[in-house]
Order: sequence, then structure tokens, then C-alpha cells
Amino acid sequence: MKKIRLRIPATVANLVCGFDILGMAVHAPYDEMELRIWDSPEIMIHHEDLFGLPEEPSKNVAGIVLLKIQEHFNLSHGFEVIIRKHIKPGSGLGSSAASAAGAAFGANALLGNILSADEMIHFAMFGEELASGVRHADNIAPCIYGGITLVKSTHPLDIIPLNTPELFVAAVHPQVEVKTSDSRQILKKNISLKSAVEQWGNIAGLIAGIQKNDFSLIGRSLNDVIIEPVRSILIPKFDEIKMKSIEIGALGGGISGSGPSIFMLVEKKETAEEIAGMMKSVYDDTKIESLVYVSKINPSGIEIIEEA
Amino acid sequence: MKKIRLRIPATVANLVCGFDILGMAVHAPYDEMELRIWDSPEIMIHHEDLFGLPEEPSKNVAGIVLLKIQEHFNLSHGFEVIIRKHIKPGSGLGSSAASAAGAAFGANALLGNILSADEMIHFAMFGEELASGVRHADNIAPCIYGGITLVKSTHPLDIIPLNTPELFVAAVHPQVEVKTSDSRQILKKNISLKSAVEQWGNIAGLIAGIQKNDFSLIGRSLNDVIIEPVRSILIPKFDEIKMKSIEIGALGGGISGSGPSIFMLVEKKETAEEIAGMMKSVYDDTKIESLVYVSKINPSGIEIIEEA
Repeated sequence: MKKIRLRIPATVANLVCGFDILGMAVHAPYDEMELRIWDSPEIMIHHEDLFGLPEEPSKNVAGIVLLKIQEHFNLSHGFEVIIRKHIKPGSGLGSSAASAAGAAFGANALLGNILSADEMIHFAMFGEELASGVRHADNIAPCIYGGITLVKSTHPLDIIPLNTPELFVAAVHPQVEVKTSDSRQILKKNISLKSAVEQWGNIAGLIAGIQKNDFSLIGRSLNDVIIEPVRSILIPKFDEIKMKSIEIGALGGGISGSGPSIFMLVEKKETAEEIAGMMKSVYDDTKIESLVYVSKINPSGIEIIEEA
Repeated sequence: MKKIRLRIPATVANLVCGFDILGMAVHAPYDEMELRIWDSPEIMIHHEDLFGLPEEPSKNVAGIVLLKIQEHFNLSHGFEVIIRKHIKPGSGLGSSAASAAGAAFGANALLGNILSADEMIHFAMFGEELASGVRHADNIAPCIYGGITLVKSTHPLDIIPLNTPELFVAAVHPQVEVKTSDSRQILKKNISLKSAVEQWGNIAGLIAGIQKNDFSLIGRSLNDVIIEPVRSILIPKFDEIKMKSIEIGALGGGISGSGPSIFMLVEKKETAEEIAGMMKSVYDDTKIESLVYVSKINPSGIEIIEEA
């Protein structure tokens, strides 16, 4: 194989109570990436989008992943990569993870599937490190595995793919800036044992609900007493959107990753679309531009669109 | 029905990383309880064991549960109860929960099954309150439901019965005293977010492992970075027993409830028996008397032995 074209999905990290350990792939939005092997050792990155991301390989999230793979396998050849990003950087929808995971997945396919899923994740984490300073896998893992994944630990890497409930996701990305690093810094370093116990009751309930396809239990478990009360302050209209979504019929939801996007899990497509409409109109009313997305949970992650 | 005889199993609360939310029923040890309705409004408790527990109904764990049920349903009749306790009070194996759950379960059967499982748990929690000052359900829930249960919250009561993996439990009760109240007081009121995240990675992994029957994942998840390092100090030989159990082949394990009993989850019966032998000999060597138990996880909880 000389060339591969990929569709790389957005991902929702944390899933409310699963801070730093859970993530979920969706279908929309997604990035497109085309990778080809060439004989020169150079790595060339072209962004065919308007986000102004650096194209120098060592400063580009996809580029650094390819450099690490090239170095690890002592490859004599390089890669040319064309990226059409639709997942906005800074949206909280796993934009950097999509670039990183796409690069690792694409390179692996071009090299004849020499990497396991966990090895792809290992290399992709260098991209996350470049983007945010933290080698985390909560967006990369669902991007590679699809569905919902548990990152039980990153050192050593221990990733558990979970069941994929047949649920819809309504998400809104209000066009306000929340930097991952800021949104990490405002978190308290210490928490009470009491709220930790409440949180792990919710996380345990959420995992049980996901594995049993028990939608009511999933809904009852989507509560975050630790991170959301702090981070949601950075997101305009968060409380209103969450309350109205649940009134309309969402099982529950909250901040996607470190925000500012908000997601809701919903049983029916029509309900998800109604919620997306409400989300848009709440931001329209306050003159904040927003993008909304409705899709099912994506059970398969990155998709190969073309290979040649 | 006028009379019922029950076998009420011991239970292991916490399951290492699930402090205050998880519990599991075993087959051994167990209590025996005989309940009968009589026409006088009195509640009579007889203990046919040597633990010297108070028999005055309002001061007896089973008695207080029956008083609450009598009061709630405005019953004109009373109960006579004979208890043969084999689960030692203060063992950390759910001794008070067995009395409380047995009373609620027995009264319910005698009254024609007027209570749901959660209502039985509601009444049994008055017994736990009398015993330890805390209305907790982590031992009562598996006693009533059997298997492994998640107490997602106690206010409101939200209990999730989980899958029962085909595993053996080896447990040892060293005859040293650790009071639940002491063992609660030494816990830190605040913990770091970092260790909380590690803990909820483990709890999420444990629930996923239980639901998927993934024994390796169960083993990798039986780690407690918050409670065990503090509480295990109160239990002589804890580290040695845990280390040797895992060397012999246990998936993992730790403190049962608030101790001093220690339990291990094991795939094969022979391995569980070997571990129990090692546990006994470690305490023999240090002149601490101990009782050991080997049984499977008990999928059904309280068992009716006789009804008339």
C-alpha cells in the first residue's frame, strides 16, 4: 500500500464522571487525512484547512507522531500527509487526538500493520503531549478502538474497550476559547474523601450501565461532583443547556473533555436533534456562534475511506 | 407461614478499590436464624452463641430491624428469633449485616413477601446504624441480593446487582480487634485528585472485569491507593499475606470491610485452599489465632433452609 485516506472521528473524553479515564468516539464532526509513503526521508505536512496549525513536522501533532514512528523503526523513507481538519482545535472534541491517532493509524496501515492498537496509542500520545503537555490517551483510545474505552492506566498503558450502547450524542461547540491547560489549572489538587466516594459510585454505575445496556442507570450515573462544578464556570450557558437537555429527554451529559463543547447522551435520534436545536438557539440568543452535531456513538473509530 | 429458618452468608465489603460502594456474598462463614410470628406484640431475641450480644430488641441488631418493621406496618403481633451466629462480630465479614438482613428477610417472608429487596435493605440499614452508627448498605445489599452488588448511593437508595464471576474466595480472620469506628477515624478526610483518578480507574476496571468475566482485568484492578495503605497498618501481617497470596496465584484481594479479615479472589479451588493454609500458618507462626474460610462467591445470598 502506498496511500491511504482516513476519516477520523471526534471523541468525547471524561464522560462526565470519568475524568481522565473514559472516552467515546462519535461520527460527527470528523477529520480527513491522506497519507502516502515516499522515498525521501522527509515528513511533509499540508493542512488544507483554515486553522493555521504549524506544518513543521516537529511542531505538528501528526508530524511528531510520524517522526517518532520513523525514528523507532529506523525508516529510510518519509511520509506526505494532507489533513483536512473539521474538528476545531480547542473545541474539547479531541481535535489533537484525531491528528495524532490518524497519523499513527495511517502509518501503521502503510507499513503493513506492524503495530498493535496499544502501540498505535503509544505513538499517538506523543501528539497529545505536543498539543497539551500531557501524554494522555482518553481521546486517542476511543479514536483507535472505537466505541467507549477505559484508560485504566497510562503507565503502563492499560486500555479496556467497553460495550457500545445504541445511543445518540448531541453536542454543541460554542465558539469561545477554553485552553486545556487553563481548564486543568483551575482544578483543585485535593478533594474530600466523601465526594470521591460519590464520584466512584457514579463511575461504577456508569460502567455497569454501559456494559448492561441499562440506559436509566447510565443516566443516573452521569453526575460529576468534582470536575464539572469547577470547569463549567468557564462555559457560558452550561447550566441552562444541561437543564434544558434533560427536560427534553437526554439521559444526561456534561462537558466534553475540558470544554467548551457540551455533549448529551440521548436514546432517540429525534430527541437528539431537538436538543441540538435548543443548544443552537440558546447560543444564538446570546450572540455566541456555535456548531452543533448529532450522531450515534461510533463503534469502530477511524475508518479507511480509500487505499491504493 | 409461621416459622422460617435461614442461612445468612458473610459478606466482603469494599472489594479493595470500591470503598463504601461494593460488596460480595460468600458461602462461609454463615449465621443461622430462626424466626416465628406470635400473637403477643413482643419481640424476643435469643442468641444461641457465645458472643454475648445484647438481647433487648432495641439494642439488638436483628431486634431493631424487627421493631422498625413492626412499627411501620403497625403490626399487632411480634416475632421470636433464635440466632446462631458463626460470623464473629468485629471480623469485618459482615456480622451485623447478617443479623440485620436476616431479620428483614425473615420478617418479609413471614409477612407474605410484602417488601421489595430494596425495602428489606432499607429496614436492615437500621441494624447497621445501631451496630456502627452509619446507615450503610455495602454488606446488607449482597446479603439480600447475593453475588456482587454496587451501592451507587444510599440517599436515595440505588443498588445495582452485578454479574457473579465463577471465582473462589479465601479469607482469614485473625483474632485481633479492629473497631469499625476506629478504622473509619484513621482515614484522611481529603485525598489528592491524582490518587482519586487512579482509584476510579481501578474501580472502573473492576466493574468492567466483573461484567465481562475478565479475571485478569479483575486482578489488575484490585488495587487501592487510598484506604488500604492507611487501614492495613492496623492488621498484623497484612503485607506478607497479600504478597504470598499473589505469589501462590490469587488474582488479588485486600482488607475485608474495615478488617481485620483479609480476603483473596482466586480462580481455582485448590489454589484458594493453598492460600488459606498459608494464611493460617503465617498467623500460627506469630501466635495469633485465626479462622480461615474457602468458598465460591455466593450468587444467591440468604437461603431459606426450612419453612413451616
